[in-house]
Amino acid sequence: MCRFTLYLGPPVRLASLLTEPSHSLIRQSFESTERAEPLNGDGFGVGWYAPRLTPEPAVFHAITPAWNNLSLRSISNVVASPCILAHIRAASPGSDVNLANCHPFAHGRHLFMHNGGIGAFRRIRRRLLEGLGDEAYDLVRGSTDTEHLFAVFVDELQRGGGHDAGGEPDDGEGARLLGAALSRAVAKVTALVGAGGGGPSFLNLAVSDGWRAAVTRFTDHPQERPESLYLLMDELYEPAGRRFSPSRVDDEGPSVLVSSERLTDDRRWTAVPANSLVVFDRWTPPDISPLPPSP
Amino acid sequence: MCRFTLYLGPPVRLASLLTEPSHSLIRQSFESTERAEPLNGDGFGVGWYAPRLTPEPAVFHAITPAWNNLSLRSISNVVASPCILAHIRAASPGSDVNLANCHPFAHGRHLFMHNGGIGAFRRIRRRLLEGLGDEAYDLVRGSTDTEHLFAVFVDELQRGGGHDAGGEPDDGEGARLLGAALSRAVAKVTALVGAGGGGPSFLNLAVSDGWRAAVTRFTDHPQERPESLYLLMDELYEPAGRRFSPSRVDDEGPSVLVSSERLTDDRRWTAVPANSLVVFDRWTPPDISPLPPSP
Amino acid sequence: MCRFTLYLGPPVRLASLLTEPSHSLIRQSFESTERAEPLNGDGFGVGWYAPRLTPEPAVFHAITPAWNNLSLRSISNVVASPCILAHIRAASPGSDVNLANCHPFAHGRHLFMHNGGIGAFRRIRRRLLEGLGDEAYDLVRGSTDTEHLFAVFVDELQRGGGHDAGGEPDDGEGARLLGAALSRAVAKVTALVGAGGGGPSFLNLAVSDGWRAAVTRFTDHPQERPESLYLLMDELYEPAGRRFSPSRVDDEGPSVLVSSERLTDDRRWTAVPANSLVVFDRWTPPDISPLPPSP
Amino acid sequence: MCRFTLYLGPPVRLASLLTEPSHSLIRQSFESTERAEPLNGDGFGVGWYAPRLTPEPAVFHAITPAWNNLSLRSISNVVASPCILAHIRAASPGSDVNLANCHPFAHGRHLFMHNGGIGAFRRIRRRLLEGLGDEAYDLVRGSTDTEHLFAVFVDELQRGGGHDAGGEPDDGEGARLLGAALSRAVAKVTALVGAGGGGPSFLNLAVSDGWRAAVTRFTDHPQERPESLYLLMDELYEPAGRRFSPSRVDDEGPSVLVSSERLTDDRRWTAVPANSLVVFDRWTPPDISPLPPSP
Repeated sequence: MCRFTLYLGPPVRLASLLTEPSHSLIRQSFESTERAEPLNGDGFGVGWYAPRLTPEPAVFHAITPAWNNLSLRSISNVVASPCILAHIRAASPGSDVNLANCHPFAHGRHLFMHNGGIGAFRRIRRRLLEGLGDEAYDLVRGSTDTEHLFAVFVDELQRGGGHDAGGEPDDGEGARLLGAALSRAVAKVTALVGAGGGGPSFLNLAVSDGWRAAVTRFTDHPQERPESLYLLMDELYEPAGRRFSPSRVDDEGPSVLVSSERLTDDRRWTAVPANSLVVFDRWTPPDISPLPPSP
Repeated sequence: MCRFTLYLGPPVRLASLLTEPSHSLIRQSFESTERAEPLNGDGFGVGWYAPRLTPEPAVFHAITPAWNNLSLRSISNVVASPCILAHIRAASPGSDVNLANCHPFAHGRHLFMHNGGIGAFRRIRRRLLEGLGDEAYDLVRGSTDTEHLFAVFVDELQRGGGHDAGGEPDDGEGARLLGAALSRAVAKVTALVGAGGGGPSFLNLAVSDGWRAAVTRFTDHPQERPESLYLLMDELYEPAGRRFSPSRVDDEGPSVLVSSERLTDDRRWTAVPANSLVVFDRWTPPDISPLPPSP
Repeated sequence: MCRFTLYLGPPVRLASLLTEPSHSLIRQSFESTERAEPLNGDGFGVGWYAPRLTPEPAVFHAITPAWNNLSLRSISNVVASPCILAHIRAASPGSDVNLANCHPFAHGRHLFMHNGGIGAFRRIRRRLLEGLGDEAYDLVRGSTDTEHLFAVFVDELQRGGGHDAGGEPDDGEGARLLGAALSRAVAKVTALVGAGGGGPSFLNLAVSDGWRAAVTRFTDHPQERPESLYLLMDELYEPAGRRFSPSRVDDEGPSVLVSSERLTDDRRWTAVPANSLVVFDRWTPPDISPLPPSP
Repeated sequence: MCRFTLYLGPPVRLASLLTEPSHSLIRQSFESTERAEPLNGDGFGVGWYAPRLTPEPAVFHAITPAWNNLSLRSISNVVASPCILAHIRAASPGSDVNLANCHPFAHGRHLFMHNGGIGAFRRIRRRLLEGLGDEAYDLVRGSTDTEHLFAVFVDELQRGGGHDAGGEPDDGEGARLLGAALSRAVAKVTALVGAGGGGPSFLNLAVSDGWRAAVTRFTDHPQERPESLYLLMDELYEPAGRRFSPSRVDDEGPSVLVSSERLTDDRRWTAVPANSLVVFDRWTPPDISPLPPSP
């Protein structure tokens, strides 16, 4: 079912998320604590932006486990970025471990990742694809439900009217558009699953363009809670005084960290409410709203 | 554009095809001589059958080049089989190197591989998939034109009326059915491409169920020849007396070797005629017919 | 600390060890039960012999976890062998995950694997190597303690006077020589460690030439038990009647299965006594003796 | 025999070396032009420094070819650095393709890479190791001649009296010390080879600490030239006006590019003289001296 972490704020080294915290994402690759199964060893991916150089992100994918990848460890110590998306995978049965199936998925300036699963995905896959515009249809190169979800998101984003403010503050408009497209993608997919008699789905999703992000914590299961998801704002320090992010190198401004599990013992982590959408950007703190949106 | 080799006959070690001949398939991975580009280094795959143990084949895929893979070399020396399909890949632009894109592709008892390309594949991909039955639709897990072709083949094979004689001689009926489905798949795909204004396609294809095989050498290019393809029958010895297949271990019977390039200097290799279909089985020598079939 | 399984007897499919038992080796790769840490996800290796074709074994190594490797699963269903050594790795700190560090290690006809560790290995590594003959010295291509142990074993085997009966029964002489060399290697290494003030070591080792095998369960820790090791003879059936090895294809004769953890619920698995050496061959049941040998 | 490129100067994106030039290092991975064999497909490595964040470099190694690695391509577009060492490998026979054998090799702040080979390396390997101090001895984790050379270099650097000016200009002293240790390593290894009756060696070497670098172009072959090596200074523009390094982001100062083959058609590339040592740092242009040094 996977674990993920998204960071947006002043540049920090990847290691601030991946290796240094007491419950770092790499630790979660073999010892996650909020899933029945502790293991997320079916490959990993980390994407990051250098928005002053280029709008498109770097993505490093591997099909080996995160915990023993020396290149990942080495790169994490040296690369700093203001926007980082990292994912460790626990492959669903029938969804093979190969490079095309590693998160985060990239298209143009966007990165996308997922913790959870579409209920009875193979049964709705064909109908899901049939509903897509050609560009989104052509994105799918692997076999994960997530990549199909990403195609639906890209389709919705294009239908919603483009918006490309890049690094210019836009009063939260860009983040709202990301969130709205993500919300419509969730609605569309859960409706398809429901119509096919399948479900439930677990859809913790995260998307970013390097300056803005939208994240969901969602399930349509009638009884169960969605997968865990936590938020930490502004204060990237561990309580005992050990700096969480020693490499903050230049920019000022707020920071937001969203993570499937809390990376540290800091008491200021808050649980994202069940079935909600969180949107934020480099200039604006998170806005949390119910999912599906109240009418 | 890739290179491939298919063997059907008394058991030989994989090394008889992969490493021991003077122009072995592994040699062709860095030094093929009948393509403009000598390199086929984008991963490989070898599939083989142990038909007395189980009807489904083994498949060993890797995204590293064949020439430096120690496991491949070691396994080749030890594993003998009466039916071997081996492939070295030169990835088309836009078709990534990952495990889901390695040939031969497998479904149930069938293995399938390809040297060439569908003309303007991305333009017809959506229509191609829309024409498939649900089982064949669901086979596609990667992004190669070949895997889509394989889905069309599987679809045609199912429509053509099943036939599962396994290891029982059937007067060539099973091989003819394989060949007919392959021929219809070629016709369907080239028609789709033509209707979309694309093309030409190069479709050297090979399929087997472990006892029977069908192979095409085909292009619909108006001037150019299809990719090279050769046939060697019965005599698996190099002219200078060095045994080509020292490990023939038990069975008797004819043998057929089909290969993108000749593996040895033996003068008895013959070129498969351009635009033709070759069908054969463990009991019957190859039958070569024009492709498309004459009316 | 790893897990391993060695089989010697009438040919069985690799799947009989790797995937089919209720507590198969692949299951142990993510859920071993007799170590504090359940995970053995740092690559794997499986070696097997086809002794009628060639005396040297095949070895398939990968740095990805055993549980998600489709080639391993596919090959396991199709390949049968009378002698199989399989290993799943949990890398020691400082001993990287790469192909040169995967067990079983091969040299000529021998395969060698290890569960445990040499105490304070880096401190005695240099002296260990200095004591070797040139051929054994040159074997070491990676950085594991196991590969160094294997070099000591090869050195001892050569010093002990060669013996190469191949597939000819030899009244247990060949197996005894394997066991004696293994026993001397254990003594030599533990003496080196002790002289360096290091230790303790955990040395569950297995070696074979395809017809004969020697296995140790050993530690020089004054209080702790060696790593777990079990033996199952002759009866390869699960108690509930489900066949453990459905693919026994030809030969007759006794069979021996040695495994870090019991592969099934069968009550006839017996624990190998702590600090002992087990030797056997295709014609002779296991002989168990104390390690170090009583004077 | 490999190809490599080292850059030191104002930050440029990795793509400026790896993908964008007309004869980029990735192009050389399948089409190098100054070796008999055009192929360097046995894995790759790229190391780079972010000296304001941390003195130790990042290293990204893979055993797949550089030309089809999507992570490499993606990272190259986004990461900029003032000091980059990149290497594509053509493995020598007997030196396997695995992660421990990928260049550049790293130890603390140093990166090291090699194009060429030690003559009859396996014959002198044992004596070479015996001459090392314990720290250098312990560095060797793989089986390449290069890693052994690196150990000799590290040993010589330590014997030469440490020097760690980090990012402080030091009137070229640090670079001279690097060069002197590299020169002694070359002398020591060629003497060992000569004493063993082996040779010749081809030793194009490059080492850096992120601020300083030393490079050799050397062979002790009595007739043949060393492997090719070129230098381009200060002007990182293609003649036709296309910017070679569009991402120069901040610093000013001289730049030096050293490469096995010229990356562009720029006429200002000069061949490094045969058998010479080149030393330079971020503040000082290259100093070229004969190798071995004239007395």
